[in-house]
Amino acid sequence: MRQPTAYLISCGDELLFGHTIDTNSAWLAEQCTLLGWRILGHRTIGDVTPDIVSAFSEAASKADVVIVTGGLGPTEDDRTRNALAQAMGVGLREDPEAIKEIEARFRSFKRPMAAVNRIQAMIPEGAERIVNPNGTAPGIQGTLGSARVFCMPGVPKEMRAMFDQTIRPVLQGAPGTSATVMRRLHMCGRGESDIGHALTHLMGERSNPEVGTQVAESIITVRMYANGEDIVEATRVADSAEQEIRSVFGEDIFGVDGETLAMAVAKLLKERGAKLMTAESCTGGMVASMLVDVPGVSESFVEGIVAYANETKIRRLGVDARILAEHGAVSRETAAAMAETLLKRGEFPGPMYAVSTTGVAGPDGGTPEKPVGTVWIACSYLAPDGSGVTRTMLYSTLADRHGIRLRAANAALDLLRRTILGYASPSHEVRDDHWHKD
Amino acid sequence: MRQPTAYLISCGDELLFGHTIDTNSAWLAEQCTLLGWRILGHRTIGDVTPDIVSAFSEAASKADVVIVTGGLGPTEDDRTRNALAQAMGVGLREDPEAIKEIEARFRSFKRPMAAVNRIQAMIPEGAERIVNPNGTAPGIQGTLGSARVFCMPGVPKEMRAMFDQTIRPVLQGAPGTSATVMRRLHMCGRGESDIGHALTHLMGERSNPEVGTQVAESIITVRMYANGEDIVEATRVADSAEQEIRSVFGEDIFGVDGETLAMAVAKLLKERGAKLMTAESCTGGMVASMLVDVPGVSESFVEGIVAYANETKIRRLGVDARILAEHGAVSRETAAAMAETLLKRGEFPGPMYAVSTTGVAGPDGGTPEKPVGTVWIACSYLAPDGSGVTRTMLYSTLADRHGIRLRAANAALDLLRRTILGYASPSHEVRDDHWHKD
Repeated sequence: MRQPTAYLISCGDELLFGHTIDTNSAWLAEQCTLLGWRILGHRTIGDVTPDIVSAFSEAASKADVVIVTGGLGPTEDDRTRNALAQAMGVGLREDPEAIKEIEARFRSFKRPMAAVNRIQAMIPEGAERIVNPNGTAPGIQGTLGSARVFCMPGVPKEMRAMFDQTIRPVLQGAPGTSATVMRRLHMCGRGESDIGHALTHLMGERSNPEVGTQVAESIITVRMYANGEDIVEATRVADSAEQEIRSVFGEDIFGVDGETLAMAVAKLLKERGAKLMTAESCTGGMVASMLVDVPGVSESFVEGIVAYANETKIRRLGVDARILAEHGAVSRETAAAMAETLLKRGEFPGPMYAVSTTGVAGPDGGTPEKPVGTVWIACSYLAPDGSGVTRTMLYSTLADRHGIRLRAANAALDLLRRTILGYASPSHEVRDDHWHKD
Repeated sequence: MRQPTAYLISCGDELLFGHTIDTNSAWLAEQCTLLGWRILGHRTIGDVTPDIVSAFSEAASKADVVIVTGGLGPTEDDRTRNALAQAMGVGLREDPEAIKEIEARFRSFKRPMAAVNRIQAMIPEGAERIVNPNGTAPGIQGTLGSARVFCMPGVPKEMRAMFDQTIRPVLQGAPGTSATVMRRLHMCGRGESDIGHALTHLMGERSNPEVGTQVAESIITVRMYANGEDIVEATRVADSAEQEIRSVFGEDIFGVDGETLAMAVAKLLKERGAKLMTAESCTGGMVASMLVDVPGVSESFVEGIVAYANETKIRRLGVDARILAEHGAVSRETAAAMAETLLKRGEFPGPMYAVSTTGVAGPDGGTPEKPVGTVWIACSYLAPDGSGVTRTMLYSTLADRHGIRLRAANAALDLLRRTILGYASPSHEVRDDHWHKD
């Protein structure tokens, strides 16, 4: 049976002129591929009605399904609904249910519906609205020749929720599709070429699963696409490859699929009934913010201090001014003091961890000894008996200010994770110092 | 004279199937637009020769220039050179200069040239190679019908260097190009439809400047592309539209082009010689982290406290436990106490600001009175004479946990900015309470 086909269209001058990078097409392409559909192409069109109309018609002549994003907003430059009506050769009608939904949405955040938003309820004759679980603009589904057309807003969160709720069920299990399982395994603190080298035998062309690696901000992801006649077989293929990869990398792997480093840390803390505090200089709240992204982390994450000024390192974190004077703010000693000084006061009962960062995020402030990108990270553990350990690590990277901070924050979370697991980092200079509470 | 046109084509299964996000098209589109070329569209094609051939021919029939990225590597699935030869109706020849360059490149990193790399020197008859300053694969330039076609490697670093060296000089100053100036104005705290409505008269199709709006995490951007015969005229068009927009929105506009809210705040603080502290509950370090992304902010941003636990709000921020008991953690009173309690101690001399957030980021913890997405924000100012003011605002939004935090962090920075400017938020319930240091 022929594999069904899909064509993706992104609308918007902001995409056409390159002001915004189109992330929707990659996401949709991946979802469709996983659902066993063949993607024929993507294209990007500006806010010019005749161009959109002809792109719709051409795509509908080639593919079984056309998926459109963007151009459903309330403003003058949102032209998708008109273009679809023209391509279908029909007029627009106001959908009374859509009006009700848009009004309800505005009521829910206690604002009056602006008159212009009324246009978002306009839908081509013979088409239907798609409910938007996350925004005001409804989507539209219609038929163009022999193709089904789905139009969704360009805002990724709205688009994804709408796809999951309405379009995924239509595509799933369509005749001619086979099962594909995607699985991603994430690691931090090893080089991509290291990992690629260890996986060479899995990375041939047209192997099953298809295996590739990607790197982003010091996190390396091994990505697998496993195929099977049904989902059980595809899952079996993915499981067996995952087992093989785990046998090589062990605890280096911190997460699977959507699991972040912060989630892995939050889970370990919860399992151990342990508390956490953060003391950040160069990462400046980024480690705390990554942790707070995890729902329920409040059970474990008691406080974070952004000690950007030396005065704050002394006043809030209790760092000895002499340490700062002798070793400088960016040093193993300062990082260790930032992590352990408050911890040793034992304000919170039970097992507790602290993680600290201090570094040169640039663009200024680098020296030959401590160039931009130098970061000291420390992680301390206070056991219920008052003993503890402080693990320190020198991390360095080449990136812009934001990149350095992001990678250092990831390195800090991974050091914390390895400390909780009692597992050393394989590729950085790491030192453990044991202590007793004063 | 007619404005010359360009069409962008990206080749590669990794893009088609969504494994990789296409960032090249956005970059190229922006470069071409700023060089005065009109982008007609982008499209993404997989590694299937007939699909590439027909995309090349179609694009060449529409545009003056076709710019292709990807598919020039040495492997079986790199099909751009064959497809271009087929579209041109010619065969491939080996380019002796290209062979020399590829060999030299391999010599430079002391490896023998693999036999497969020889294919990278193959070029359609009648076409020319383009030198690759950053990699082994040469580009190709040829003619297809009346269009000029440029093919470049997909690796962004190689593509950008090749574009700058060879293609930019060809496009620059071509007949019919005019000068284009892009300008973006950013606002926070107003609805996109509000802003769109106020700008309707500027947002017609084919107006000069072309004006559009975009929204991302509660930040609305008005984007203009202004055209003129030369850069002076284009700048004048942009300036005049900017002036018109500013006359409507005034201090709502916090930044131009790459300027972020955090940069605007950092600049205002520096101008006033003022210090800042942050006290975050639901945003959990995100406000601090946004500020620390700004180089040099250490002059003003002295400390941040992530007071996620009530105990920490009391212990580190000095919030009165009775306020928490009486009004709850998510309340005007708690937000105000988080911002002003430490400030009133006057630990830092001179004018000082504090900003706080406390809210329900979800997914759990919502109540009918305080649903998920409810955030109280406070901003306090301590004058050198010990008097001060605390401004409080209720912010609410519908988003996932990360989105709520991000929008609340932006709202907090904007409240701070408006407080520094002595300017009230136009669209939220805001209250100012004046006080004197105890």
